[in-house]
Amino acid sequence: MADQIEQRYQTIQFLSDLLHSGQDTEFIESFESLHDFEMAQVYADLPEQFRSVAWRLLSIDILARVFDNLDIDEVDIVKLLQELPPQRGVLVLQEMYADNEADLLQEMPARLVATYLSLMSKSEADTVRKLIDYDEQTAGSLMSTEYLAVEEDLHVDEVMRLVKKQALEAESISYVYVLDLQEHLAGVISLRDLLTHPDDLAVSEITNDRIISVKAGDDQEDVAQIVADYNFLSIPVTDDDNRLLGVITVDDIVDVIDEEAVEDYSGLAAVNVSQINDTPWHSAIKRIPWLIALLVLGMATATLISSYDQLVQQASILAAFISLITGTAGNAGTQALALAVRRIAVGSDNSGWKNFVSEILAGIIVGIATGCSVFVIVAIWKHNSILGLAVGLAMTMAIIVANLAGYLIPVLIDKMGFDPAVASGPFITTLSDLTSVLIYFNVAQLFISHFVGS
Amino acid sequence: MADQIEQRYQTIQFLSDLLHSGQDTEFIESFESLHDFEMAQVYADLPEQFRSVAWRLLSIDILARVFDNLDIDEVDIVKLLQELPPQRGVLVLQEMYADNEADLLQEMPARLVATYLSLMSKSEADTVRKLIDYDEQTAGSLMSTEYLAVEEDLHVDEVMRLVKKQALEAESISYVYVLDLQEHLAGVISLRDLLTHPDDLAVSEITNDRIISVKAGDDQEDVAQIVADYNFLSIPVTDDDNRLLGVITVDDIVDVIDEEAVEDYSGLAAVNVSQINDTPWHSAIKRIPWLIALLVLGMATATLISSYDQLVQQASILAAFISLITGTAGNAGTQALALAVRRIAVGSDNSGWKNFVSEILAGIIVGIATGCSVFVIVAIWKHNSILGLAVGLAMTMAIIVANLAGYLIPVLIDKMGFDPAVASGPFITTLSDLTSVLIYFNVAQLFISHFVGS
Repeated sequence: MADQIEQRYQTIQFLSDLLHSGQDTEFIESFESLHDFEMAQVYADLPEQFRSVAWRLLSIDILARVFDNLDIDEVDIVKLLQELPPQRGVLVLQEMYADNEADLLQEMPARLVATYLSLMSKSEADTVRKLIDYDEQTAGSLMSTEYLAVEEDLHVDEVMRLVKKQALEAESISYVYVLDLQEHLAGVISLRDLLTHPDDLAVSEITNDRIISVKAGDDQEDVAQIVADYNFLSIPVTDDDNRLLGVITVDDIVDVIDEEAVEDYSGLAAVNVSQINDTPWHSAIKRIPWLIALLVLGMATATLISSYDQLVQQASILAAFISLITGTAGNAGTQALALAVRRIAVGSDNSGWKNFVSEILAGIIVGIATGCSVFVIVAIWKHNSILGLAVGLAMTMAIIVANLAGYLIPVLIDKMGFDPAVASGPFITTLSDLTSVLIYFNVAQLFISHFVGS
Repeated sequence: MADQIEQRYQTIQFLSDLLHSGQDTEFIESFESLHDFEMAQVYADLPEQFRSVAWRLLSIDILARVFDNLDIDEVDIVKLLQELPPQRGVLVLQEMYADNEADLLQEMPARLVATYLSLMSKSEADTVRKLIDYDEQTAGSLMSTEYLAVEEDLHVDEVMRLVKKQALEAESISYVYVLDLQEHLAGVISLRDLLTHPDDLAVSEITNDRIISVKAGDDQEDVAQIVADYNFLSIPVTDDDNRLLGVITVDDIVDVIDEEAVEDYSGLAAVNVSQINDTPWHSAIKRIPWLIALLVLGMATATLISSYDQLVQQASILAAFISLITGTAGNAGTQALALAVRRIAVGSDNSGWKNFVSEILAGIIVGIATGCSVFVIVAIWKHNSILGLAVGLAMTMAIIVANLAGYLIPVLIDKMGFDPAVASGPFITTLSDLTSVLIYFNVAQLFISHFVGS
């Protein structure tokens, strides 16, 4: 990785030097020889005074490839586009793949979107507007409208001619979609089959009509799961009448899988880990609300403990085990939470009751095993088996409850239609602190006359 | 998802019925009309007595597609292969893509591997043995040896003829690799370019010699990052002399990204979330060691607290804030941990010192903000501003320390060459319990004469 960054730095230096010394043709040649991803990286990192020369020199086609490959989460892509005059910017937008174009427009303030749309023809503006309207995180927002489609009743050579003609525009050439006269999606032909069958064969012979497609409103996570399962290179998106609207390519699926993983991971830690390049100030500002919210919940636990003040005064040794019990129950709850969130993510939460019973049983086994360990440790350490019994029993119960909460909360959040990943690990542990303390002091109260003074 | 499971169940029922009533031809036809992924799912789920008929009916080619698409983590794929006589099993193995074949053999006991290898020709067995030898999680273990490669000095039509001939064997037909006379990787041609350029053009004109490749020993996570960044459909793997060994296709990259995400997520929760279908017993058995290990670490905290027994006896109110301070510091530590692990995963941990300073600053800001909040809350709640000051100050310091630990521990683990994901959230929180308690009671000791009795 370090090598790559060093290499990119050198490329930027080299290209800047070319521009600085007026070697425009050499600049264009060198820039165009880069991979699309590198072009994008280099373009974004060029000093602004050189970038303002660069976009004048580069063709619309190349600029579109640059903008297609900029990472919208890492670069202020709107600002980069605004460095171009709108008349040129709109040409770049139109040359980009429709999904990326829509993503970029979605990042802009409404006024700016209106400016660009006003510079397009009406029909083009309408198409783009439709794409912008799809909710983020749905299939519609990922799809590109540059796909290969043919009518039925053609032969292999006719389709191949069409593929060759459209290959430069299409985002993926791995599949050709077959449409009936009403534009309904009727089947799919793989390029591999086209290449390995004779020219005069009717394509109906190699058309697969058991086609797997998704609806524009489908959740991107479900779409990603299908593409991953079936090893597709792209998947068609249809409307409710099975009319083809666009295709989603596997490179976008790779991004979705990464994005969803980051979301789940962030949820578990109560911090957005996609923003790793924030300044300390911004980074702190984003973490603080979570911590304060959890702090307020934690205050409930503190209040509860202080209400058992008398008990603690009677037996100050009880204080020693507060963090042990809350900590261990919290750990068990986090485990149950992570398993539940994962189960929901991969869609194996269907057999709800079976999972519920299974998780309760696992919680009981974990609770008893851990409780017994604590009993033995405390009984030996403090030479007080009654105290050990109290702590062990409280631990067992606290774990069973925390485990259940860790399982149930994400499941309920999911049933309510939200992303279960919002049930963060810290939330579960802070919540289970409350129940653990409640259990602990109540159990201790039952036993206190036996272990104090024994 | 539920629909799909229902549908699969019906397909299995339907196919079983066909076999039961002896409609063998209809079975073969129906089975072959399924997508590869569905074939695999259905085959694995067929009742065993029908599966033993199925493999007799199906061709080696179809069986290879079944085994290529079985998920090695979900199905006992070795058992399924052993249901076939070895002479037939080895044919299936040989027909599979080399990467999947190697994965399957890696799952087997050595004795069984020897059996299958003994049934292959020597040269084939040697090739397979080489693939098996690559470490898991390296590029070598992911690559397939079925790729398209041509010599330099050909024309477009000659290459296309070759592509057509080899298209059925190759795992990916998106790129054709160009080798020099010593088999060194010299360039790559995209199928798209082949399709859109005239037949008589020398392919050197459309060969990209700025080729991005990986080495067989490279970490799979780094390979996945490159493929994701560059939007490749496959990437070539070479040896140290730049000789082409194989290619990794994007479907395997999708699996890697998912696998790595699951690993990181599991690490954060101290539980392996890929095993969501375990029985309660097995699930519990896997969680208990983590909990007990953390429990032992937690005992250190309990011991520490009990050493401050006198302090607690003097001011039992101190007990009320133990879980608040340990909990909040633990949450802050988990946030820092998650950010650090992510930063390492995406390779932006290069500017080590900058990140270090940045994280310390963020920790200080977070600590002060949270400490001030606690000060205000406790001062008002308990009408005791000195107690508030003590708790707030302790909280600030505990958070700064936990934050630093959350950042440093994964970074150090990474520097030592291990996967930073093993530094689990529960480990950080349990560790920070210890430092938090130490800070808390020492600060309290300083202030105790002021807030007791005030």
